Order: sequence, then C-alpha cells, then structure tokens
Amino acid sequence: MAQTQFIVLGGGFVGGFIARTLAQDPACHVTLADRDQAVLERSSIKAPLSYNVANLADTAVLRKVVEEADVVVSAMPGRLGYRTLEAVLRAGKPCVDIAFFPENALKLDSMAKQRGIQAVVDCGVMPGLGGMLGLDLARHFETPLKLRILVGGLPVERCWPFEYKAPFSPSDVIEEYVRPARLKLNGEVVELPALSDVELLDWPGIGTLEAFNTDGLRTLLATLPFPTMIEKTLRYPGYAEKVRLLRELGFFGEEALELNGASVRPLDVASRLLFKAWSLEPGMREFTVMRVEAAGLRAGKTAWARYDLLDYTDESGEFSMARTTGWPAVLAARMLAGGRLRGFPPGVIAAERLAGDPTLFNELLAGIKAAGIKLEFSESTR
Amino acid sequence: MAQTQFIVLGGGFVGGFIARTLAQDPACHVTLADRDQAVLERSSIKAPLSYNVANLADTAVLRKVVEEADVVVSAMPGRLGYRTLEAVLRAGKPCVDIAFFPENALKLDSMAKQRGIQAVVDCGVMPGLGGMLGLDLARHFETPLKLRILVGGLPVERCWPFEYKAPFSPSDVIEEYVRPARLKLNGEVVELPALSDVELLDWPGIGTLEAFNTDGLRTLLATLPFPTMIEKTLRYPGYAEKVRLLRELGFFGEEALELNGASVRPLDVASRLLFKAWSLEPGMREFTVMRVEAAGLRAGKTAWARYDLLDYTDESGEFSMARTTGWPAVLAARMLAGGRLRGFPPGVIAAERLAGDPTLFNELLAGIKAAGIKLEFSESTR
Repeated sequence: MAQTQFIVLGGGFVGGFIARTLAQDPACHVTLADRDQAVLERSSIKAPLSYNVANLADTAVLRKVVEEADVVVSAMPGRLGYRTLEAVLRAGKPCVDIAFFPENALKLDSMAKQRGIQAVVDCGVMPGLGGMLGLDLARHFETPLKLRILVGGLPVERCWPFEYKAPFSPSDVIEEYVRPARLKLNGEVVELPALSDVELLDWPGIGTLEAFNTDGLRTLLATLPFPTMIEKTLRYPGYAEKVRLLRELGFFGEEALELNGASVRPLDVASRLLFKAWSLEPGMREFTVMRVEAAGLRAGKTAWARYDLLDYTDESGEFSMARTTGWPAVLAARMLAGGRLRGFPPGVIAAERLAGDPTLFNELLAGIKAAGIKLEFSESTR
Repeated sequence: MAQTQFIVLGGGFVGGFIARTLAQDPACHVTLADRDQAVLERSSIKAPLSYNVANLADTAVLRKVVEEADVVVSAMPGRLGYRTLEAVLRAGKPCVDIAFFPENALKLDSMAKQRGIQAVVDCGVMPGLGGMLGLDLARHFETPLKLRILVGGLPVERCWPFEYKAPFSPSDVIEEYVRPARLKLNGEVVELPALSDVELLDWPGIGTLEAFNTDGLRTLLATLPFPTMIEKTLRYPGYAEKVRLLRELGFFGEEALELNGASVRPLDVASRLLFKAWSLEPGMREFTVMRVEAAGLRAGKTAWARYDLLDYTDESGEFSMARTTGWPAVLAARMLAGGRLRGFPPGVIAAERLAGDPTLFNELLAGIKAAGIKLEFSESTR
C-alpha cells in the first residue's frame, strides 16, 4: 500500500513538531518545507522525514511543494497564513491549518467546496482544542449559559521584564495584543481592546497569573451555543501593562515614520527587538495552562463543568506549547487522511466543529491524553 | 551708552525664557536664534527682542549669527551642544551654556584661555544651581562628608504611563537614562547604570516620589570637597521601570538595524514616539523640586544642612522647568556682561564655581528668590 503523503508548511517549533510526530507512523511519509534550511535541519532531527527548502511566500513555489501531498498541514506565520491556505486549496489539497491569521478563513469555503475538499482551520490548542472542549461542555446542559476560556503558554523561569517566551513569531504574538477582542455578552458580540479587563487569578501549582481579553474566540462566536463567551490570555502578573505601554506609545504602529530619509514602521523595529526578548530557546522549560469552564441549566438548576489542561516541556525537551498546539493538528490531519471526516461536507471546517461528532471528539480526547497532556474534567452543581 | 548685545542660541522653552527675561532690561538687546521660525515666534511673544531664523548646526552660519554678540547664551539640544560652544569660543565670544551635552566642556578650556574669554557651562538648575548650593553647603562644615542632590521636573496632572512631561528635547531626556551615572563614594568615583538604586521618598506637599541615579554630578565630582556625592533624578513612582524596560529591550539603541532594506536606529524611532508622550504643551502645569542636602563635621560633631527648592508654573503660564533652568543662566549672563566675573581667570568655568565667591553666590541666591522661586535653607545637629 502506498504511504500517505503529508506536506507540513513552516518548520518552526510547532510545524517541526507536527512533522516529526506524523512521521512516527510508517504508513506515512512526511515532507517539511521552509525557506530556512537551518530551521529544517533543527526541526527534522531524529525523525524519518524529508525536507524541502523553498520560499513558500511565492505562490508558484508553494503550488509545486504541495503537488504530491495527500494532506497539507500549514504552520505558517500568521501574516502568510491566509494566502498559503488559499494557494493550497486552489491546488486542490485537503489541509489542516494552525496559522493564526487575521483574515476570515470562511471566505475560502466556496473554493474548497468547488474542489470537493476539506480544510480544518484554527486547529491548535486555542483556537482549536479549547473550542472543541467548549462545544463538548455545551452538551452537559439543557440550556448553556456561559463559557470562559483561559489559556497561556509560559516559561518556568521568570525573567524581567516580560517573564514570557513564545514559540511563535513575535509579529503573531504582537497581533494578539493589537487586534480588538470580540466577546459575546448575553447574545451580543462585543468588541473590547486587547489587554483589557486585567484580573489576577490564583492557579494551583503555578501561583498567581494575570488574565486579559484577547481575540481568541473567532469562529466560536458563531459555532458555540453559549449566549455569553469570554476568552482571556494568561500571563504572569504585570505583563499586560508592559505590553500596553509599548502599544500605547506607538511601538506597534503599522504606519511608516519618515526618519532621516528612511521610511520605517515602528512595528518592524519592535518585532525585531522583541524577537530577542521573547525567544524560546532549546533547553528552556515552559508550560501550557488552559481552563475551559462553562455554566448552564440542568434540570432547571445552574450547573458548572470544566476542563483543565496543564502540560510541561517533556523529558525529550519538546516544548509544551509545540505539543499542545501541534497534537490537535496531528490528530485532525490523520483523521482527514484516513477519510474519518466524511461526515462533514466539503468546505472550510472550524476545528471545534469536529467535536460535534462525539465519536471523533472522544478519539481526539484520547489522542491528547495518550500524548501525555494532562487534561481533567470536573463538574459541580455547587 | 550702547546696549549690551545678547545672542541666545536655541528657541525652545528654556532658550525662549532666557531671551525674554534678558530682554526685560532696557540696557540689553537680545536676539534669539533658532532654525524654526514658528518656535521663535512662540518664544518671542510679548518681549522686545529680535529673532534670527538660522540653521545653527552649520558652523559658518553660527559664526555669522554670534558676530555682533557681547555675550552668547547657548540653550541648544545636547547633541549639538559641544560643537556649538566650540564654535562660539572660536569666534571669541563669552558664553553661558546650559546645553546638556555628553562631551567634556573642559576640553575647550585652552581655546577660551587663548582668546581671553570666559565660558560658564552647565549653568541650569541641575547641573547648575544645585552645584552652587552644594558648594555653599560645604562652607557650613569643617569637614564636609556627604552631599546628595535630588532633582526633578514633573507635571501636576499625572497621566499613564510615564506621568512625565519634559520641556527638553526627548533625545536629551533619553540620554539621562542611558549614560552611566558617576557618583563619588568615600573619595572614589564609581560608575553605576542610570536608573539604578531606585528608592521611594515622601515629599511634603507632593506625595511619594521615586529617586534613581543619573549622571548629574559631572564637574561637581572634581569641584566639590565632599568625599561622598550622589545625584538622583525624581519622578513619580514606577517611572524608572518603564524607561528601563524600553532601554533593556534595545529601544534606545544607537546601532542601526537593517529592516526591509532601510537602515534605522531604534533610538530615532523611540525619540520620535516619546516626543509625543513627553511633550510639555502650553497650558499644562508642572513643578520643579530639588533638594541639596549635606552632612559634615562641625566642632567634631555631625551636622546637616540643606536647601529645598520648589517651584510651580507661574500665573503667566511660564513653566517652572524653564524658569528654574533659565534663571541661573540669565543671572550668570548678566554677571558676565557686566564684568562681574573678573575674579575668575579666562577659560571654561563650571557654573558651581561661581558660588566659590560668597558675594556672587549671595547675589545669585537673591536673584533666584527675587524671581519668585521658593528656596529654603535649613540645618540641624539632630
């Protein structure tokens, strides 16, 4: 039997992890593509996979790279995410996408439908797994009332000023702090500034963390049945003010300044400088924490249910942020390749919708737990 | 009798104030020079003075501008300060200088001596008046032991994030936070990072302020007899950490980054953005606070003495930072023009040395008080 051909686009920490993990299955052949050979070599260490040095920002090149794929996984930086997905779908390839891009992926729905293929988008930890858990929680109530998702990836060693390290590109991280956060309050979509509503929360085993609004709900605003939904990012206390300082002073500005004859966007300077400050380096230890909590009516009474996820860098040094972001994509890519998503029509599928099929959801949950990611369910009627 | 010709270089808040104040005396004629006509027009409102639109960064132009001067006052931005003073002295003109430049003014001493002229440098509030008060305090002890100077200019209305406004160019302000602070501890000159040793101090009538090391002592390290000397800048609490954040992330870097083919210094971007955040606008209210405190032995016992200065924007809207910085320069310029500094040999004179002559010091003190600046002396033997 021919091997399933996976092409993973983007060889960063997350893309590299996805490629290595898919390559563990002898029935699969994986090619990891990136413009940077050094990144590919680091990402492909100790895994039986091919790599392809290619400038994926060039659509013609990209089309060539995905030519042989059965399933494509896109782990590209957010700013290239939408056009990458567009090119992959135009090439007629099914795709699982974890790029955090600002554009609306559902605009590509008709293109996918025309070609009779599926694209599972926003399929990381959050957006992604968090939404699936939220959709599952809705099933615990006759009347779902409220959902709150709290999520963050943090280093164990806390260094001033940010006490933060990211496995993502800094421009994607900054984007989270600039893009207005959309929440749902009593059925109405409300837009608030990112970094707003800062609150302190005590976290068992971790200590006090800070939570603030970010735009993480995205498709969940339409796909989940809760009239009130809030998503917040978790960081160590003091983080939001420091980032807000940079934002309010204009360091994330996308309008060019004219300086001594040169034209420069403050955002580009900030991305370059913050890249150093936020760089997650091999050997560091970090963790991912996520709480998805819901309230609703059951037999006429208010009840609560929640999932708690906590995951640390594993013994092999694989980052938890790469693992928790990568595993949902790995599991979805395997399902897509194995024809397990036939229950969904062709088109663009927001990842959380996979949880609409309880069999698939249980399989995903089992896959996450088998990966060693600690995920606990609890409920109460107070 | 011919009028004394004063030329004031630099028409910012401080230079403008100096020019207007000197022009009150009918025996003087004042010309204010700046490259920006709008600045000159604003600065010369309601004062009988001439102005001269000229690019003072061009040495040939500068030479022409000062040609008719009896005394020059330089209130240029720090980065142009040294070469302006050099050109003024080369042109054979006596000068009072308040530009906060990083170079050592004493390097121009021989040039001034050769031409038989005097230049009084660092003649603002601090450096300047603070050093004069320190030198006077030394006279209160048989054995001077310790001097501490605390000084800051602050807005009355406190706005996040910095709660700070400056009448100086932002690059001069940033320079204070980058240049290492030189202190004297038990006779040894010690270098510490700017913004270090942050402490909170309660200030009667103002509240709690933050004090941190800056490089304000400069020539005082050599001219004052205290074996231990510390200078700190005062801001509202939380300020030093925010500025340190920008500094440590590299936003004050002077090395150019290559970004999309353009070459850009982070410092230039930061100066542009902070200019908006720190801009002192007409109509705002601000104040200047300075404490010069000394300890020493008198009749074998430890004694303390100090000066406290507190000054607010006056009823006419003249900023206290312009008044307290400008008055020492005005008084010194009048002394220089009136031949009152004949007791000092030609050369570069650090402003505090004027206080070495008790008659001149008392005159300066009387001038400061006559200007409405609140300055109090107190002493104790505990």
